This record gives sequence, structure tokens and C-alpha cells, in this order.
Amino acid sequence: MSKHPWLTIGTDHPFGPHHLPYGSFAHGSGEPRLGVRIGDHVLDVEAAAAACHRDTRPYQGGNLDPLLAAGPQEWAQTREWLADLLGDEDRADVLAPHVHPVDDVVMHLPFTVADYVDFYASEHHASNVGRIFRPDSEPLTPNWKHLPIGYHGRSSTVVVSGTEITRPSGQRKAPTDETPTFGPSVKLDIEAELGFVVGGRTRLGEPVPVESARDHLFGVVLLNDWSARDLQAWEYVPLGPFLGKSFATTIAAWVTPMAALGPARVDLPTQDPQPMDYLRGEAAQGLDITYEVDWNGTVVSRPPYATMYWSPEQMIAHMTVNGATLSDGDLFGSGTVSGPEPATRGSFLELSWNGSEPVELEDGSSRTFLEDGDTVTFRATAPGEGGPLHLGECTGTICPAR
Amino acid sequence: MSKHPWLTIGTDHPFGPHHLPYGSFAHGSGEPRLGVRIGDHVLDVEAAAAACHRDTRPYQGGNLDPLLAAGPQEWAQTREWLADLLGDEDRADVLAPHVHPVDDVVMHLPFTVADYVDFYASEHHASNVGRIFRPDSEPLTPNWKHLPIGYHGRSSTVVVSGTEITRPSGQRKAPTDETPTFGPSVKLDIEAELGFVVGGRTRLGEPVPVESARDHLFGVVLLNDWSARDLQAWEYVPLGPFLGKSFATTIAAWVTPMAALGPARVDLPTQDPQPMDYLRGEAAQGLDITYEVDWNGTVVSRPPYATMYWSPEQMIAHMTVNGATLSDGDLFGSGTVSGPEPATRGSFLELSWNGSEPVELEDGSSRTFLEDGDTVTFRATAPGEGGPLHLGECTGTICPAR
Repeated sequence: MSKHPWLTIGTDHPFGPHHLPYGSFAHGSGEPRLGVRIGDHVLDVEAAAAACHRDTRPYQGGNLDPLLAAGPQEWAQTREWLADLLGDEDRADVLAPHVHPVDDVVMHLPFTVADYVDFYASEHHASNVGRIFRPDSEPLTPNWKHLPIGYHGRSSTVVVSGTEITRPSGQRKAPTDETPTFGPSVKLDIEAELGFVVGGRTRLGEPVPVESARDHLFGVVLLNDWSARDLQAWEYVPLGPFLGKSFATTIAAWVTPMAALGPARVDLPTQDPQPMDYLRGEAAQGLDITYEVDWNGTVVSRPPYATMYWSPEQMIAHMTVNGATLSDGDLFGSGTVSGPEPATRGSFLELSWNGSEPVELEDGSSRTFLEDGDTVTFRATAPGEGGPLHLGECTGTICPAR
Repeated sequence: MSKHPWLTIGTDHPFGPHHLPYGSFAHGSGEPRLGVRIGDHVLDVEAAAAACHRDTRPYQGGNLDPLLAAGPQEWAQTREWLADLLGDEDRADVLAPHVHPVDDVVMHLPFTVADYVDFYASEHHASNVGRIFRPDSEPLTPNWKHLPIGYHGRSSTVVVSGTEITRPSGQRKAPTDETPTFGPSVKLDIEAELGFVVGGRTRLGEPVPVESARDHLFGVVLLNDWSARDLQAWEYVPLGPFLGKSFATTIAAWVTPMAALGPARVDLPTQDPQPMDYLRGEAAQGLDITYEVDWNGTVVSRPPYATMYWSPEQMIAHMTVNGATLSDGDLFGSGTVSGPEPATRGSFLELSWNGSEPVELEDGSSRTFLEDGDTVTFRATAPGEGGPLHLGECTGTICPAR
């Protein structure tokens, strides 16, 4: 075995040379640095660029911000350079001082979040929520199959995996209550989503068509859209979710480049009715990513991303068709990933059917919504070149309300 | 008359020494600079600080960003220093090179917008919209008098007064249409709002009570929440407005400090039912600001801000009660300001009652919603020390859809 562990990582490793996700790490008391992960190590990208006499500007500042701004050509060149570098025995001694075990570093938010949008792209999730929240209406609203429904969320409360989540307080009112009451949420929930990381700023008034959307799709992160269902149910008519969501959104520390997900591309489910022209195009594809939702050590669900109705390219085309700009660091979530089977639902609202069907955990306890001290972790795998990729974990533990 | 025009500006001038709003200006081919307005001139604040041997850091970078981050003590000290400086004959020669006529400068966005939230705090507006959009239901939703309803908007499309607004395209479907159609909005509208500019970042999980809210309220700007009503009506159920709003939001170039608005503080309208504890407090007050909505030269409405049901302090307390953070540069809109009388409505949706009652303009033409080439300008006045303040104008002209 080489004295340089990254040289011997095969494609059977979830963070093998076919993956190379990016993150922001700090070593010891140092400032955050942009890193690329190889196996169980992280390479300091700016330091490696300096050692290779390469322009360091796209890697400065400690996170992905300048690389996102640099655009798709730079993304491809950087990935090619890193893949080459990490397989090069001759340059391994030069790199060695800039490689750290992942266990020795602390991860930070991988980029500065500009606008954050959350979509609602799973037909199964939207139907389930419709049945639960609006039992007297059709499960899907009339617009659902015509456009990818989305809304803006709070950018400043997007946090990195591992950040503790304080149970939010707020107003709620059950239909049977005469007046609303105030207190800690009693229906604290998760939403297993995929987050898309955007780069390449556009100009106001210039839509991005489906065919060009990938020029702005840098990569993906697992995303947990923590949701206080009781707060949400009371507040959301008529202007949508607000405090039921804005207390925290967790994303994984590692951003998987879209370039690593080529083998995961799949056709979308049949879209019927056919979407309008601006939402059509061959570039509109799905992703074959399978989730694990782990609740205190029990995998309670395995949502399949391939069942999502709308593609990320369609979400970008829709989001910009009115002329709205994309900014470097925009983040958009897919919406909860739920498959057709109960064991593939991506929220506890659905898994426990709004609390009426408790979920059994392996420690013998049962749950409907989150209790203080509970930990939820998302993991996910996707086909990659040579072997499956494991996307970076997305985890959080619930602290009691203040 | 003094050779230094700012020395002779009285409180009868809308931008007199009792006002002192801030903006970001560029002179000639120069970079944007933080400015303070006095009469029809603007003083370069960073240059003035340097000339006075004062710490320039809160005034660097060309806009309000560092001053917002510096917090309320610095806000008060800066205002005191500037008021003193601008009245000082002995230092006028030193200042003179850093003072420019406003007609000679170009204004930029006064700060970098972090999270943008839009509230819905006018009872008259919410009731009118309810009657128009949901004629079969109660005008106000059951939650409306219990909490200030709000939702997140798109930060990256907040633009400075004077920016041309391209008519957005998107999907619409009238109730009588069988399927949705695509095209330029045919119900392009305005919303006359007040925008609140926030500084003093908070920590995740720490609510800001009503009593502390003013420590985070830096100032106000006139705000036009351009709205495509046809797009909005089709998309907004169940997750709220998205593309009907996200194409553009215009704010005035001049931020009036809260400190200048002391004389404008008034009691709120009676709140019945009494709000929950976290929304109560003596600091929750209204503002006596009267708007003019000018449509192609005709003042079509005079919305009175004093009729707003919820105060900005209550909006901050609500927005953070779930632990969500405030960031330097957060912007929140009040929601459309509409009074009880038809001639005080702050949107064309209301003024034309969804197109059924055309508005007559002085040029002999009539309007329901915005036509290409139309210009809308908001002006507003508030009582100030010694004389009324005129808030900075908020204007925009409609360009045809692409």
C-alpha cells in the first residue's frame, strides 16, 4: 500500500476518484478552506493549486463561492485537474501536506446561500399532503401538473449537516380549537429533499431555457427541510409556508458535482398532460438517487428520487421564465422525495399519516413526529462511473425549545 | 446665501437637516460610494469621515452594508456626527470637494439585500384581495388578526428606483378557461408598500421580542412589489406567490433612518382580538406616512400608512419567534398600504376592482392594469422635526415583454 492513501482509493469507495465532492473544512484552529474529498481524506484545493502553480482565485475564500461564480467551463477544468492530480503518484509528495483525514476537520457551510427556493416536485408527496391537509378537495391542486410549484425560503437559516436544531415555537390552531395557542411545535417533521446548487449569474429579464439549465447546475446536496406542521397548517393560507419552515434547513457538507452524476441520469416519469413548450426539452431528466431516512438508528424509509415528476432543468426554466435572475450560490430544493409505497415516504407527516399511524423504531419505541433528542440522518446512493456514489450525509439532532 | 448650499437648507426642505437619508451614489465614472443626502446634494460619507479623521470602516464598500452590520449605537453616532458636520460653517470648506449635486450622480441599490420578506399587514388590502380572489369565502382568512402573515420573496430581483421593469411572461388560467395558457402578463400591477431595512445580525434560535425590535430597524424605503396578478392567481395555491412577484421589486434609492421618523410614530389601530403576548408591547407603533401613487402623471391614490394593522416591531417579533435569524441587510415589506376609501387603495387590482372599474388618468386615457410604457412613481411624506420629510421616490417604467 502506498504511503499516500488517496492513490489507492478505488471506485468501490463511496468517495472514490469518480466522485470528488467539494466542501468547506477547517483544520485545527484554521480558517475554513475549500476542500475536495477523496476517500476518507480532504485535499485543500487552494493550497494544491498554489503548489501546482495554478490560478488560485477560483478556490479562495474558504468555500465554493468563487468557483460557482466562475461558471461551467471552470467547473469542468477544475474537476479534470483534480482527478488527474489525485491519481498522480509523482505529485503525491507535493500534495501530502495539504491532505487531512476527514475525521480531523470541521465542516462548514459549503457556499454562501443566495436565494433559496423550495419546490414540490413529487407527485406522491403532494398527493399525500393534499389528502392530509385538504381532505375535502382533490389531492393535487389544478396547477400541479402544469408547472413545478415552488416558493422562496429563508436563506440565512440554511445550516450545515450536524448543526443542532432547536425546536421552534409558534402559533397553532387545530380545526377543533376555538382560538390559536402558542408553544413549542408538537408536530416537528423532516422533509427528505435534494438540493441543487447554482452558479453562473444571469441578467434580470433573461430566462434560462431547459436546454441551458445545466450550465447553471453545479451540483447537489442532501437537504432536510425541517417543518413544524402545526405552525405551517395555521399560517400557510393564503401566502404559503413561513415560520413553519424558516427556523432551519440542513444541507450536507459535501456538494456532489453534477458531472459525477452522469450515470444517474434517467428519463422522467411520463408527464401527462404534456408540459408547455418552455418546460420541454431533452435536457429535462431525472436522477436515480435512492435515499435512506434514518431515525435514531432505524432506517424508516427509502425514498426514490427517480420517481420525481419535475426535473431540475424544468425547475430552473420555470423559476426564470418571468425574467427572474439566477445568482451564484442560489439553492433550490426538489421538495420532499416520496415514492408510491408507504415505506418510501420522505416525511414523517406521511409516514405516520399525520400522527395516526406510529412508526416503530428498532429500540422498541415508536414515533409520530420528532421528540427532543431525536437524530435524523439522510444517506443516499447513486450510480457512478465504476461504482455507486454515496452522497454526503445530512444529519441533525433536535434540542428542546427555549 | 452661503457658497455652501447645504448650510442654508431649512427644515422646510424635504431633505433638510432633520432627514439625512442614506444612499449609494456614483459620480462620473467612479465606483459607488455611501452618501447622505442634504437638500439637493449628496455628501460622500466615507470621504467626509476620512477628512474628519474618523474611522471610515462603517462607511466603506460603497453602500450601507458595513453601517447596517455596525449596529444601533453606531447608527446613532453616525447620524449625530453628520447632523453636526453638515451644520458646521467652519468645516464646510473641507467638505466641499465631497459634496455633489444629486442631479450629477447615479444611484445604486443602497444595500445588499439579504433575506427579503413581504408581509400583508393592511386589513383593507387583505379584505379587498380576499373579496376579489376568494369571493365565496370570508374576506380575511381566520389567521389574519392573530399573526402578521408574511412570506419570503426573491432578494436578487430587488432593484433600485428607476430600473426599467420588463413585463413578465408566465402561465395563467382564468376560472373560465379549460387549460392554462402562456404569455406576457395581462394584469401587471403595483403594490405601494413600505420596506424596512434591518441591521444587527442575530443568532439562530434567539427570538427578538417587540421591545428589542427597534435595535434592528435601521430605516425605511418606499417599495413597489410589482405583481403579475394573472400569474399569481394560477400559481399561488397551495404554497403562495412565486413568479407573480419574483421578476422585480423596486425600492427607493434613499433610506430614511428610523431616527428621523420619531415624530411620525402613532398608535396602531385597535387590535381586536388582543394579539398573543409575544406580539404585544409599547414599542409596537404605527407610522404616519401618507403616500401618493402617481400613474403617468396622475395621482390616482393616497394610501395612509397609519391605517396598517400590524407594526414593524410586531413583524420582527413574529418573523423571529421560531428562532429564525435576522441578518444585516434583511429587507421586509409591509404589504400593500390601502386605506378604507377607494381613493386610498395601494394596488391597481383594488383601484380597478380586478379590471372592472377603469381608472381615469388626466391625459384622458383610462387604465385597469399597467400598459407598456406606463410609469408609476410613489412619493410619501411623514411628519419630521420642524417640517415634513419627503421619503425618496420609488419609480419604474414598464418595458414590453421579450
